[in-house]
Amino acid sequence: MTPIRHGLSGLEYFKKMIAGEFEPPPMLALLGMKLVEAEEGRVVFTATVEEKHYNGMGVAHGGFAATLLDSSLGCCINTLMPAGKRFTTLELKVNLTRPLTKEVGLVRCEATVVHVGGRTATSEGRIVDSRGKLYAHGTTTCIIVEERRGKLEP
Amino acid sequence: MTPIRHGLSGLEYFKKMIAGEFEPPPMLALLGMKLVEAEEGRVVFTATVEEKHYNGMGVAHGGFAATLLDSSLGCCINTLMPAGKRFTTLELKVNLTRPLTKEVGLVRCEATVVHVGGRTATSEGRIVDSRGKLYAHGTTTCIIVEERRGKLEP
Amino acid sequence: MTPIRHGLSGLEYFKKMIAGEFEPPPMLALLGMKLVEAEEGRVVFTATVEEKHYNGMGVAHGGFAATLLDSSLGCCINTLMPAGKRFTTLELKVNLTRPLTKEVGLVRCEATVVHVGGRTATSEGRIVDSRGKLYAHGTTTCIIVEERRGKLEP
Amino acid sequence: MTPIRHGLSGLEYFKKMIAGEFEPPPMLALLGMKLVEAEEGRVVFTATVEEKHYNGMGVAHGGFAATLLDSSLGCCINTLMPAGKRFTTLELKVNLTRPLTKEVGLVRCEATVVHVGGRTATSEGRIVDSRGKLYAHGTTTCIIVEERRGKLEP
Repeated sequence: MTPIRHGLSGLEYFKKMIAGEFEPPPMLALLGMKLVEAEEGRVVFTATVEEKHYNGMGVAHGGFAATLLDSSLGCCINTLMPAGKRFTTLELKVNLTRPLTKEVGLVRCEATVVHVGGRTATSEGRIVDSRGKLYAHGTTTCIIVEERRGKLEP
Repeated sequence: MTPIRHGLSGLEYFKKMIAGEFEPPPMLALLGMKLVEAEEGRVVFTATVEEKHYNGMGVAHGGFAATLLDSSLGCCINTLMPAGKRFTTLELKVNLTRPLTKEVGLVRCEATVVHVGGRTATSEGRIVDSRGKLYAHGTTTCIIVEERRGKLEP
Repeated sequence: MTPIRHGLSGLEYFKKMIAGEFEPPPMLALLGMKLVEAEEGRVVFTATVEEKHYNGMGVAHGGFAATLLDSSLGCCINTLMPAGKRFTTLELKVNLTRPLTKEVGLVRCEATVVHVGGRTATSEGRIVDSRGKLYAHGTTTCIIVEERRGKLEP
Repeated sequence: MTPIRHGLSGLEYFKKMIAGEFEPPPMLALLGMKLVEAEEGRVVFTATVEEKHYNGMGVAHGGFAATLLDSSLGCCINTLMPAGKRFTTLELKVNLTRPLTKEVGLVRCEATVVHVGGRTATSEGRIVDSRGKLYAHGTTTCIIVEERRGKLEP
């Protein structure tokens, strides 16, 4: 059920996902989040804020921004990985700077690599609306893992 | 559509939510997350890891743990708030210590208050399985807000 | 003993500190850290890694990077504050990406504002050597405070 | 100049440091921070807030709490390590909940392990005064390293 990255580098895999050759991962499909750009060290995901993302307060749940950032922060690091090599997330920090509501509509989350070493990597990302207004930003710390079971993120 | 907390303290509101008197917030309903315990300074949410929560790697997306922690960390602070007073999340840090899979099944996320001051508050929480094994933990920083539009979290 | 910012905006104050009109704060003097550039939304501190900064492992203590980042992250926000208005730090996250040793010598920590709202602000910063190699990076969340006792950071 | 841990487990080493058999690391000596308790998975450092720790605002610099927490958070994990095995810090998050001043005097920073796996570990810690009042708290993410050059933290 989950896509296989075997034989593909991270960037090749993400490009095929953008081209629609792979199903998006279930969590991203559920939340309406989509990988739209991928190059070496940088990715962009988009999503449209809907009422289904709301907490009880009439704004998007903090988990919406956290999920969008987690995908972007991890994938931008994996654009630099050859076949068989992958980074996984150890920790994630998210700052919520403005409420996300349906009126905001489509948001972009762009993430870029900050550091890639032999065993660890870090990245940073921001969620902005169509006019570039900032709603959330975050950073992550990742660690390298050996590919197992032929499965791969995002 | 979103529940109204007007006239209720945070704890009264959460107790009514546990009793089923309010609809759960849309994002939590979507992800199958449920408030099950609330007392002064402490709450517990539960969720069952399902394939719908997966990333492309065959484990739950980091956003699953982040959403569960964000709900718990914010609500445990709001159990201490009287009617008309509420804290909102400024930032959230999540550590992912073990992969969450369907085999793990039901998880609990317990959060407790660390600091509550006049304007800011912090809390910490952990996601564990039925045997107490740790999968993720996190902390949050919240700021007080005036209630607006009669709407309220989680 | 501590410098007074009364009557000065954040930026005016920092410019006078760079010009040597104010004593540097005691902690920065103790650790050999120095504000060298300040403009709207951006500052640079420098320091030279010495053996006095070491932990027992033969590299600079994580507190060295944390102190340098904390100064930079807070001050870059305060460059945007008029007289009588100041932000203080609620939380700080620091990533240590490479060991800092005497051999690294002089490092620069540049920080820039990410978000400034009415009550909260965030910023990000990086510690690099003379060739731009990255050693640490971080982000902070600040909250506005009323000036008291005529005292002011960094 | 720096103490050697060769042949000693983390806990043995820390116990000898408490007993005064090793010089404290330079940065801790400079800031007046001292390891006073160590057992499996838990350490306590103490320090007395002095004017030398101040920023320009008349309170202890955020780097004071960050350094005390960084030492404690790393060492509590290393109490669980046998000879030749050591964890180093990847990232650190610090919440500053109350200002630290000379009037606070002696503070304790107690840290405990949250997770220890084969490659990564996390811990949490709090800075409190003699009456248990909270001033700062934090968490860290560490990664295992091979001992090199016979040197070791804190």
